[in-house]
Amino acid sequence: MARTHALESPSVAIAGVTGAVGQEFLAVLAERNFPIGRLKLLASARSAGREVAYGGKTHTIEELKEDSFEGVDLALFSAGGGVSKAFAPLAVDAGCTVIDNSSAFRMAEGVPLVVPEVNPDAIAQAGIGLGAGGRSGIVANPNCSTILMLVVVHPLHAAAGVERIVASTYQAASGGGAAAMSELEQQTRESLDEAGGREVRSKAVFGRTYAFNLFSHNSPLQPNGYNQEELKMVHETHKIWRQDALPEAARTGITATCIRVPVMRAHAESLNLAFTRDLHEDEARELLAAAPGVVVVDDRATETFPTPLDASGTDPVQVGRIRRDLSRPAGRGLDLFLCGDQIRKGAALNAVQIAELLIA
Amino acid sequence: MARTHALESPSVAIAGVTGAVGQEFLAVLAERNFPIGRLKLLASARSAGREVAYGGKTHTIEELKEDSFEGVDLALFSAGGGVSKAFAPLAVDAGCTVIDNSSAFRMAEGVPLVVPEVNPDAIAQAGIGLGAGGRSGIVANPNCSTILMLVVVHPLHAAAGVERIVASTYQAASGGGAAAMSELEQQTRESLDEAGGREVRSKAVFGRTYAFNLFSHNSPLQPNGYNQEELKMVHETHKIWRQDALPEAARTGITATCIRVPVMRAHAESLNLAFTRDLHEDEARELLAAAPGVVVVDDRATETFPTPLDASGTDPVQVGRIRRDLSRPAGRGLDLFLCGDQIRKGAALNAVQIAELLIA
Repeated sequence: MARTHALESPSVAIAGVTGAVGQEFLAVLAERNFPIGRLKLLASARSAGREVAYGGKTHTIEELKEDSFEGVDLALFSAGGGVSKAFAPLAVDAGCTVIDNSSAFRMAEGVPLVVPEVNPDAIAQAGIGLGAGGRSGIVANPNCSTILMLVVVHPLHAAAGVERIVASTYQAASGGGAAAMSELEQQTRESLDEAGGREVRSKAVFGRTYAFNLFSHNSPLQPNGYNQEELKMVHETHKIWRQDALPEAARTGITATCIRVPVMRAHAESLNLAFTRDLHEDEARELLAAAPGVVVVDDRATETFPTPLDASGTDPVQVGRIRRDLSRPAGRGLDLFLCGDQIRKGAALNAVQIAELLIA
Repeated sequence: MARTHALESPSVAIAGVTGAVGQEFLAVLAERNFPIGRLKLLASARSAGREVAYGGKTHTIEELKEDSFEGVDLALFSAGGGVSKAFAPLAVDAGCTVIDNSSAFRMAEGVPLVVPEVNPDAIAQAGIGLGAGGRSGIVANPNCSTILMLVVVHPLHAAAGVERIVASTYQAASGGGAAAMSELEQQTRESLDEAGGREVRSKAVFGRTYAFNLFSHNSPLQPNGYNQEELKMVHETHKIWRQDALPEAARTGITATCIRVPVMRAHAESLNLAFTRDLHEDEARELLAAAPGVVVVDDRATETFPTPLDASGTDPVQVGRIRRDLSRPAGRGLDLFLCGDQIRKGAALNAVQIAELLIA
């Protein structure tokens, strides 16, 4: 449905408002003074009736239903892929534009997959917008690990053409939702209460010992031996960089190993980058210092580098340990290390930034 | 001093017996029934007089002094680089062979740097041995991250020539000694006792928040931006593989990013390998299954892969997530993930295996 006028204060719905990302949607919308006409908070029947404060008012959570999106201009979804698959198309049919945090539509043709610092124009190119002439549609929020990586790597790619990325992640509990964060805390208490620390009881979310331990990311394993999280970093990056239609040899070669570590809410990534054109360490540092959404934390004198705890609750992706890869010709390789809040820039903040593009 | 007869039960000293690795020396020597004639336990004056049980007897710790090594055939050192530098040459002059766990002599000319599964012959080539004709000398135990990496990568290198390694580590507290492990535990208790979990008081070892956090490895930063731990993985590997005299282009290209994670005593490493000759995933898995000191933990059906907790207290290095690097031509790249006990194979066990080679 094409709009005939721009919206200054859209009617906004949040689907999955009780989750970790849902709660962060509210915090980020408030912080950024996002203009909201009417606010509709949606969740499962179990949470319906609960009250939530926003903007000085009390809002009552409603059950997410097929007709929830009548009269809603913009919906932020973070209620899992199943809910997105079932309800996002209904919302779009009702004239609502959906920003979806799940993986359900990320790779779908015609659905823009957007990191605002990287490919903001993908939304307008798809014709989606709340302004005049815009149509309703789905805009997908990329996977958290992809977002954090691309905010940092994109300015380097624009300058020197990234030929290859080898990524190893250090991912926080929050990627598994609020229950996963509680599980890590509870397991850690149990582990400290018991000598040896091997026997923990709270395993409902991950099914394994997480306290003082780490493990291969819990996303489903694919026949090629990669897990889905790893392949998301590969495929989503190719889509965002518009390399998905290129022959394989012309795409950036990307491989990733994704690991869950006992950290609460910020992911870290160790990235090894190879370039097609010369990019030296100092130039990379200057590009990153000027890049939107990035803060360089790289003080060798005081050995101050990014940490998940420092990145937690903050908007920018921290990058440091920027150095020439000594195993590659000068100018052709860099190593770096980044940390970013998984719930904020990895999910809610990126979605709200997309919303800002939609009403611009 | 060259020996005229083989030693069946050498007189053994342990320097630094009160540390985490020192204690593990005793455990591993006992488990492996290492033949010991006389056992001398050495530590700083502070610990002298303390009693330690070994082999059904009580031993009194003596202060480490210049004349401590008179009549000692073999000494295991793990008391820090300063102690090694001061006392290991004195021990050698007294006819004692030293297996040194510090970094003091690793890169020194004429000092073999040995992973018994990789380059056991380096000891005999240096003429060092407790058997007939052997001379006393220093044998260096490599850095823990290097040992764990090479036990896994060496059989693949032997088969297909490893051209390049990109390593990212997930390193346990134990690398900082027993005090670091206590600090992680104590900080975690403090963090759980306080809302928010940011303020912790116990920072004597690392000087930063470690509970539910991770940080760039604390070894000194070098002018090129690498920390020493990372460069150890590069330079020690080149020495062990006898590539240190080769021109740079002929060596295996190695880069590493070393990160300390809140795990107690086993390190993990994410490795991306490129080969000069074809090596496919199935062949790599077969080579690793047959490799000494390695256990393949790679069950995709049950998603059972290496974890630090499973590797803790065990001898072999666990390797899993073995898969073709999809960003490289088939046969030319693999990703894998390993875990190994930092105190055992990363330190004490490797040293005792060297001792076994010396008396063989």
